[in-house]
Amino acid sequence: MSNKKGRVFSGARPTGRQHLGNYLGAIKNYVALQDEYNCVYCIVDVHALTTVETTQNLRQNTIEMALDWLAAGIRPEESIVFIQSHVPEVMELHTYLSMVTPLGKLTDLPTFKEKIRLHPNNVNYGLVGYPVLMSADILLYRASAVPVGVDQAPHIEFARETVRSFNFRYNCDVLVEPQMKITQVPKVIGIDGVQKMSKSLDNHIEIAATAEETQKRVMQMVTDPQRQRRSDPGNPDVCNVFSFHKIFSTPEEVEMVNTECRKAGIGCVDCKKMLAKNLNASLAPFRARRAELEKDTDAVWDVLMDGAKRARVIAEETMTDVRQAIGLP
Amino acid sequence: MSNKKGRVFSGARPTGRQHLGNYLGAIKNYVALQDEYNCVYCIVDVHALTTVETTQNLRQNTIEMALDWLAAGIRPEESIVFIQSHVPEVMELHTYLSMVTPLGKLTDLPTFKEKIRLHPNNVNYGLVGYPVLMSADILLYRASAVPVGVDQAPHIEFARETVRSFNFRYNCDVLVEPQMKITQVPKVIGIDGVQKMSKSLDNHIEIAATAEETQKRVMQMVTDPQRQRRSDPGNPDVCNVFSFHKIFSTPEEVEMVNTECRKAGIGCVDCKKMLAKNLNASLAPFRARRAELEKDTDAVWDVLMDGAKRARVIAEETMTDVRQAIGLP
Ligand code: SF4
Ligand code: SF4
Repeated sequence: MSNKKGRVFSGARPTGRQHLGNYLGAIKNYVALQDEYNCVYCIVDVHALTTVETTQNLRQNTIEMALDWLAAGIRPEESIVFIQSHVPEVMELHTYLSMVTPLGKLTDLPTFKEKIRLHPNNVNYGLVGYPVLMSADILLYRASAVPVGVDQAPHIEFARETVRSFNFRYNCDVLVEPQMKITQVPKVIGIDGVQKMSKSLDNHIEIAATAEETQKRVMQMVTDPQRQRRSDPGNPDVCNVFSFHKIFSTPEEVEMVNTECRKAGIGCVDCKKMLAKNLNASLAPFRARRAELEKDTDAVWDVLMDGAKRARVIAEETMTDVRQAIGLP
Repeated sequence: MSNKKGRVFSGARPTGRQHLGNYLGAIKNYVALQDEYNCVYCIVDVHALTTVETTQNLRQNTIEMALDWLAAGIRPEESIVFIQSHVPEVMELHTYLSMVTPLGKLTDLPTFKEKIRLHPNNVNYGLVGYPVLMSADILLYRASAVPVGVDQAPHIEFARETVRSFNFRYNCDVLVEPQMKITQVPKVIGIDGVQKMSKSLDNHIEIAATAEETQKRVMQMVTDPQRQRRSDPGNPDVCNVFSFHKIFSTPEEVEMVNTECRKAGIGCVDCKKMLAKNLNASLAPFRARRAELEKDTDAVWDVLMDGAKRARVIAEETMTDVRQAIGLP
């Protein structure tokens, strides 16, 4: 069919409008992977149910994220972009995989213990099975590779072990062990200058924000805390504004800030204005495409429906093999 | 549509050829319920996966059980008879229900503790979710009533609580609390005269056995253990053969055995021969129908496929409501 290297699967929770952390950490990579792989990108709404407080915004969050993905360069005619719950086969496979997954292995996972810590009143059965559902996502599409940051490596190892358990239990080879494609995920710090950028901490900058909103958020950014006055020299090495300059500004500008900041040759206000300008310039084509797509969200829903249809073809192939391997009547 | 009282759901694991315990405890009741209810009878092959050692016989066990059900008088043009895995919506609903089911509630269930005791090396995630899957079975078909023996009452209570959790969580009324239809399930003792009749204990009598096989099994039955010799008087009250006479023999014969046994007027061999004869006579019409059905098992598979199709129509209605209630995109 194509001379691409294989199939990549990745899923992301429908968190609504994406921020720079999502963009630099995941979306840019999603876009790039398309050149080398057949990509399956899934908006995992079922996973969202394991912990969300409310599902009221699920629909809106889904379409906002899809708009960001498509505007950022995910090509739906080439890649499969869809919503997890639209291919219910994943829940069927999840059930079958749960029959070969020891309970203790799930409750021993560090991510489970972390989730218990975060949601002590919401340790539901579905939450425990989170890694099983995640495995089902990957295995249903027989992905050969899954892009992950190092911190998620245990989940892929879990999926690989699940494949071995299933294939051994039913003496078959219908499920495929996915490879990890470790990607260098830059740690994007929020405008508070301290914590990872995150919507829930409200320290984020939305990629679909207007130029004005973006500038406003950038002006709020915490800089080198030692630099109290305009006349104080600063240290770009500890300043989050400078980290963004390194991504969005020209080498010359980066060099200039690096030099001038240290001798108070540039003030933080001007430094931030420059960043805001560059950030906005960099995101302008994306924002134009997004504005275009927003005019017809029905068409975006259609893209997601079409993605589900194509995903389901692969899913049904896998499930036919799975059911037969189990020996279901 | 019909003036029946509502919809009844019941599921049974595909255990192959049914024995007298299954027949007297469940099948007879299934047949009778058809006169009053719209019945949905499910061969729960997915449940079987939670504990089975091997799935090699799953297909064979399914068709044997279906043959017994149909020959015993389950009317597939009127009731829905199908295989659980053929309606994968049950696994979808199971996943959604698992999001509103606290883990602790599952591990605290006495049946879970019993299962751990029986299958210490097989406590898989799927096994823990057994009651959730059972709830999904019932709720998917919006059954108004579920026939259960008193020992299974906690499972129905669990399903009712799951309905309340779901409807409360998503502020809706799409799921329906099933009523328990407590049925007097006679405790059928095996030919060992001690334990409940069960295939795994090999103390059972298959209803589809030949007359000769049946007679052979009856002759092996343990009787009043105090009656050592033909000349010893016996006590029918402690004799399992007498229990069966009360079901399969005429009142006159029962009275005769009751009297004669106590004064050694009848020997155990003759008493058993009489039981075997009555048992065979009682099962003869069933066995004739079964022999007829066995000639064309393809037709029986078709019955099960048709049942699945009809079950799926109901399932899809429920799932459409469920997905909307959750707010899935
Ligand atoms: S001048 Fe720029 S790099 Fe230096 S502290 Fe201010 S914002 Fe940071
Ligand atoms: S005569 Fe019949 S009822 Fe009496 S002990 Fe023998 S088998 Fe049992």
